Amino acid sequence: MRAGGAARACRGACRRWLSGCAGPADGPGQPAASARAVDCQALLDLCRRRHFLSGAPQQLSAAALLGGGRPRCGPLGVELRKNLASQWWDSMVVFREQVFAVDALHHEAGPSQPGDSAFRLVSPECIRELLQDKELSKEQLVAFLEKLLKTSGKLRETLLHGALEHYPNCLDLVNRRLPYGLAQIGVCFHPVLDTQQIPNSVKRIGEKTEASLVWFTPPKTSNQWLDFWLRHRLLWWRKFAMSPSDFSSADCQDEAGRKGNKLYYSFPWGKEPIETLWNLGDQELLQMYPGNVSTIQGRDGRKNVVPCVLSVSGDLDLGVLAYLCDSFQLTENSFARKKSLQRKVLKLHPCLAPVKVALDVGKGPTVELRQVCQGLLNELRENGVSVWPGYLETMHSSLEQLFSKYDEMSILFTVLITETTLENGLIQLRSRDTTMKETMHISQLKDFLVKYLRSAKNV
Amino acid sequence: MRAGGAARACRGACRRWLSGCAGPADGPGQPAASARAVDCQALLDLCRRRHFLSGAPQQLSAAALLGGGRPRCGPLGVELRKNLASQWWDSMVVFREQVFAVDALHHEAGPSQPGDSAFRLVSPECIRELLQDKELSKEQLVAFLEKLLKTSGKLRETLLHGALEHYPNCLDLVNRRLPYGLAQIGVCFHPVLDTQQIPNSVKRIGEKTEASLVWFTPPKTSNQWLDFWLRHRLLWWRKFAMSPSDFSSADCQDEAGRKGNKLYYSFPWGKEPIETLWNLGDQELLQMYPGNVSTIQGRDGRKNVVPCVLSVSGDLDLGVLAYLCDSFQLTENSFARKKSLQRKVLKLHPCLAPVKVALDVGKGPTVELRQVCQGLLNELRENGVSVWPGYLETMHSSLEQLFSKYDEMSILFTVLITETTLENGLIQLRSRDTTMKETMHISQLKDFLVKYLRSAKNV
Repeated sequence: MRAGGAARACRGACRRWLSGCAGPADGPGQPAASARAVDCQALLDLCRRRHFLSGAPQQLSAAALLGGGRPRCGPLGVELRKNLASQWWDSMVVFREQVFAVDALHHEAGPSQPGDSAFRLVSPECIRELLQDKELSKEQLVAFLEKLLKTSGKLRETLLHGALEHYPNCLDLVNRRLPYGLAQIGVCFHPVLDTQQIPNSVKRIGEKTEASLVWFTPPKTSNQWLDFWLRHRLLWWRKFAMSPSDFSSADCQDEAGRKGNKLYYSFPWGKEPIETLWNLGDQELLQMYPGNVSTIQGRDGRKNVVPCVLSVSGDLDLGVLAYLCDSFQLTENSFARKKSLQRKVLKLHPCLAPVKVALDVGKGPTVELRQVCQGLLNELRENGVSVWPGYLETMHSSLEQLFSKYDEMSILFTVLITETTLENGLIQLRSRDTTMKETMHISQLKDFLVKYLRSAKNV
Repeated sequence: MRAGGAARACRGACRRWLSGCAGPADGPGQPAASARAVDCQALLDLCRRRHFLSGAPQQLSAAALLGGGRPRCGPLGVELRKNLASQWWDSMVVFREQVFAVDALHHEAGPSQPGDSAFRLVSPECIRELLQDKELSKEQLVAFLEKLLKTSGKLRETLLHGALEHYPNCLDLVNRRLPYGLAQIGVCFHPVLDTQQIPNSVKRIGEKTEASLVWFTPPKTSNQWLDFWLRHRLLWWRKFAMSPSDFSSADCQDEAGRKGNKLYYSFPWGKEPIETLWNLGDQELLQMYPGNVSTIQGRDGRKNVVPCVLSVSGDLDLGVLAYLCDSFQLTENSFARKKSLQRKVLKLHPCLAPVKVALDVGKGPTVELRQVCQGLLNELRENGVSVWPGYLETMHSSLEQLFSKYDEMSILFTVLITETTLENGLIQLRSRDTTMKETMHISQLKDFLVKYLRSAKNV
């Protein structure tokens, strides 16, 4: 239901944009949609060309995104999402006490609520057998199918269920002391309204990568914890952004009157929620473990209490799209006046950029230069620096073409190994962000990069 | 079909074990099943107690595993699998050129082959609408359901399909030069035969985490590459093992006569395949892109060829189970004669152990000692060393109890901070593997641990 609401809100924003009247900005820090929309197609073309996103050109159009379509990731996009997930995990699990990893199944066993629209999992053999049974009346067939819908498993729509399932067991890990949390990153499924069909018929299956923390807290501090996580999450999203103010938050409420918050990113086509926080109270736990309160009680000082459940859940696929939009810059190229020759660069945060450095060779003896590159590549990789082996490329490109390609790939530095390197060990290092070139001794490169990345992480 | 074959082979091995006649070992290096079976229940109890595996005691019994049941991971098991996945990714993607990450959807759109037994995804609204239509005849209903089975999406059973789908697009990343590979780690679904039902009725959905490399190679070198990957994978599995010879390989062949290899681990209940390699030829690609050979041709030197597809696919869930079995040691405790007081330890490889070091406090002023621990914890985590904050525990345990708990959790080192530390900076460090204690200055701990882990990785 929440997903449906979000889709509706999104389509509303899209319609406003399509009809040309962007309307007043509906939150602090949101620039007028029309101003950024101009660059949207240029960004999507770049993301496709450089394998951040994949799909046919018509799927990767502003119009498709406006219609609620979600592009899939290409190889560089997958690495970007991996980096985003790893940053999330570091900040929510590794650097916190009392947060543990759980792993819920992608499917939940039946029975399902009759009104539940989640996709059901049906074994074809089971139905086929029935269809071949000539003696079955229509009524019997209908009754069987109704039973099948009720009892068959379904695909998970959130990660909450899995955390609730592991809650009593994991209480043991903290000696029943509250608060504590359970974290998981995984794919969730939701029905997608196919706009080409009649409006209410649910047709396609959408997949999204959710990063979820479920936090079990004593009731009396639950609202303080909700505020804590709201601040924490907003700061986290803003940490990696070029324009932090494009990430904003707003209160929300569910049908039962329970309070929550949504974090939004202002896409060129309108705001969309990228993370949702809820204070769900104790309802879900009591419902899941009826009549057995002692198994779900945790310790709050000396008291035993049934905890409140806070759900903090972000959409990493939408996060990838948000940072692609955020980091895209289109600037005048001083050497070329034509619009098609504007400098396009993705200034992704150093922690998020899929590739940190490209190694290329200039003039000189090919075999020797490649050997130097290979050694450098291994050294850098062993220190956790991801490298693009540009020196393996056999097609010749000018340096300008190379830099412009790497800027589009969001590669932080380009290292050029030439015959000079063989003579005196000097390499040329070109920065994505400043476009400046500097000379450095090859022995200093690893330490420079490791330090650069570490300081970017700790800012 | 392959999954079914594996399940049958497994049940065969299980029946032999249950009936008490282990039979001759069916490969080099496999110890008699009965010798290791004794400890199997002790291991499973430990894994449950220490949250490597989760589930009710009856699910975590030797009998359940014999029946083909797959236990789910608890928090420590999830971290172990994360470490295993990350080692796989490093060795197959990060440290190789020409391997890229892909991300396939968990569901595949229809149409499906009629005989395909993969679970179908059905929208309940869609069926419900039909069931409420009074005017529909039984024949119309049957015809509709048959169409539904044919057209509805299904859950993926392997990761191969996704890689084939991305193949033409990613050719661009290597300038069409072969060989190159596409890698993905993700969950796949398979029907599980429910032994309590009639034998042939497929009922439950099984989930497993697959790590897949699909390697596209010129036909003339495809067999050499298959040999290369077989060696590579066998060495990789053995690298982290206490008893490397429990990992073995054997040739296999599919229904179409295509050649492959399986890697096995000798579990206490029999051998099971943990990884499968196939040389699939060009059949799959030609079938997926009919009539458009130029889009799938890659460069082999100066020739354009349709590549052979090698599939290298491991089961990380079974891998976790294998390393748990491999690392379990039950030894006489010199202080206690009773069998229940035997020393139980999981000697997981340092790269795989979910927690590297535990921090605990001894006698002394609580507040100050905790502050020291907190500082140390942050320093270690910033250097990528995962820490168990034992000092937060309020229940008192003796040192022996603590060490025995940490041995079961496979924690490499226990660090003890006492009032001595406050006086002269000395800490006590106790090793899981040697059970020896040594004294070290607190300022040396980080470097010692980082070095230890790095050298373990490079062995």
